Amino acid sequence: MQGHPRRLIEGLWCATLTPLDADGRIDHLRLVDHVRRLLAQGVVGVAPFGTTGEGPSLSTAQRRRGVEALLAAGIAPARVLPGTGCASLAETIELTRHAVTSGCIGALVLPPFFWKQPSDDGVFAWYARLIDGVADARLRVVLYHLPQVSAVPLSPDLVARLAAAFPDVVVGVKDSGGDWAHTRALLARVPQLTVVIGHEPDLPKLVRAGGAGTICGVANVYPDLVAALLLPDVAPEREARIAAFIEILFAQPFLPALKSILADRTADDAWRSVCPPLVALASSQRERLRSALRAARFA
Amino acid sequence: MQGHPRRLIEGLWCATLTPLDADGRIDHLRLVDHVRRLLAQGVVGVAPFGTTGEGPSLSTAQRRRGVEALLAAGIAPARVLPGTGCASLAETIELTRHAVTSGCIGALVLPPFFWKQPSDDGVFAWYARLIDGVADARLRVVLYHLPQVSAVPLSPDLVARLAAAFPDVVVGVKDSGGDWAHTRALLARVPQLTVVIGHEPDLPKLVRAGGAGTICGVANVYPDLVAALLLPDVAPEREARIAAFIEILFAQPFLPALKSILADRTADDAWRSVCPPLVALASSQRERLRSALRAARFA
Repeated sequence: MQGHPRRLIEGLWCATLTPLDADGRIDHLRLVDHVRRLLAQGVVGVAPFGTTGEGPSLSTAQRRRGVEALLAAGIAPARVLPGTGCASLAETIELTRHAVTSGCIGALVLPPFFWKQPSDDGVFAWYARLIDGVADARLRVVLYHLPQVSAVPLSPDLVARLAAAFPDVVVGVKDSGGDWAHTRALLARVPQLTVVIGHEPDLPKLVRAGGAGTICGVANVYPDLVAALLLPDVAPEREARIAAFIEILFAQPFLPALKSILADRTADDAWRSVCPPLVALASSQRERLRSALRAARFA
Repeated sequence: MQGHPRRLIEGLWCATLTPLDADGRIDHLRLVDHVRRLLAQGVVGVAPFGTTGEGPSLSTAQRRRGVEALLAAGIAPARVLPGTGCASLAETIELTRHAVTSGCIGALVLPPFFWKQPSDDGVFAWYARLIDGVADARLRVVLYHLPQVSAVPLSPDLVARLAAAFPDVVVGVKDSGGDWAHTRALLARVPQLTVVIGHEPDLPKLVRAGGAGTICGVANVYPDLVAALLLPDVAPEREARIAAFIEILFAQPFLPALKSILADRTADDAWRSVCPPLVALASSQRERLRSALRAARFA
C-alpha cells in the first residue's frame, strides 16, 4: 500500500454515524466524542455525513455546523472527508466549498440522486459544474459509487472521463457497490486514482490488487475487525469473521442496526435515534440482533 | 366536480417548468411571465418546484425566492401550491413553513427520496414530523405519489393512515404514477381527499370517477389540450390527441423535451436550459421532436 504518489487517503477510514438529539439535530458533543474514540482506536480519518452518516437526511446548515464542530474540537482537517453530495447542485457546491475552505482533506461527493437513470453526459456535466462552481485549486473530490442507494451508478468509463478532465481534482473513488467485478474494473481503468471500498469483505482482495483502503461503516463499531483485513496475508478466518458480522448486520435494516450496536457498545441509548424515513430498531429487533452477535461471539 | 366540501384545488393546475439563467439560477422575470400567461390561458393555479419544476435540483433558498418572486408580482397565493419536498426533513419543514407563512394554498410534498424502500412506518413518521415541525394550523398538504422518479411509492393504505391522523392537514394527493388501478384504489380508499393526477390521458376517467383534476406538465405548453379532458363527455378524439402528444413527448427525455417545446412556442431559447444531471436536447433531438409534432399537427 506504500509508494502511490497521488493517494488522497489510505488505510482505515470510518463512514461515521451521526448522533441525533430528540429533535433530530446533530448532537455535536457525542459526534466529537465518537470521532476522538475512533481516532484513538487507530482509524486514520472520518467521512461524516455520507450515507452511513445520514447526510442527505440532514440540512446543508446542519452538515456545515457538524464539520465545524469537529474542527473546533481539534480534529485535524486532514482527517476529515465530509460527504457533501445533495440532490441540488447549488447546495453541493455550498457544502463542498465549505469543506475546502475549512481545510478538510477533500469531499466525498454522491452524484445527484433525484432523477433516475441520468445520462453519463448529465452526471459528467453536474460534477464539472460542481468543480467550476467551487473554483478552488485546493479542491479534491472522491466520487461516490453507491448504486443500491443513490440509484445513480458511476461507471468506470464515467469515472475515467472525470479523472481525465480534472486530474488534479478528481483524485479518488469510493466504490460501495459491493460488486468486486466493478471494483476490479475501476482499478484497471483508473489506476492513478485512490480507490477505496465500502464493502468490508472485499478488503483483502482490494489490498492484493493495490487498492487504497476503505471508508466503511463497520469501523464505527468494530474498527479492529476491519483493520485486520488491511494487513498483508489475511488469515481466512478473518475474512469469515467479517462476512459473519455483515450477515448479522444486514438481517436488520443495516443503519438502525449499526446505531443500535454502537448504543450497546457505548451504553448510550441516544445513539439509537435515526432520521426518518429510517426507523430505530424495535426492542424485538434489538434482541434478535444482540442474540445473533452473542451467538457469533462478537463481544 | 362540484359540491365536494374539502377540495383544496380543482380543475386544471400546471406543474410549472422553471426557467434558468446561464448560471443555473431561477430566472424570476421569465417565471412570472410564464405563470401570468398560464393563468390568462385558463389554468387555475400553479405548482412550482415540483418534479416538472426541477425542485429537488434547486437549493432551498432558490425555491423560497422563486415563490416570493411570484407573490411579489401579484400572483394570488391561493393559486400557488409550491413543491416543498426534499431529501432532508429539516429542509422540507423550512420550505413548507415558508409556503404556509407566505399564504400559499398548501404545499405539494414528495416523500424523502434518498433512502430506497423505506417502510410505511418510516414515511408516516417523516410526514408526521413535518406537520409537527411546521406547527401552523393553516398548513394543507398534498401528498405526492411519483414512484417512477422518487422511488418511494405512497400506498393507498399509507395515504389513508396519514389522512386519518391529520384530517385537517393532509387534504390531497397527487397521483403521478400513471397507473389507473392505483388512482382508482385511492379514490375508493380516501374519498374525502382531493385526488389529482399527473398523467393527462387518465383525466376523462378521473372526472367520471369523481376526482378533482390535475396538476400536470403538459399544461405548460398546451393548456387547452388538457382543459378539454376535464369537460364532461369528452369526445374520444380528444383522448387520442393527448395520448399522441404524450407519446411524442416521451420519445425524448420528457423534461428537456417539454422545455424545448415551450422555447419553440414562446420563441425564447432561454427556456431550453435544464439543471444537470438533465441535459438539454441536442439539435438533432429538437428537430425530431419538431417533425413529430408537425406530423401530428400540433401547432
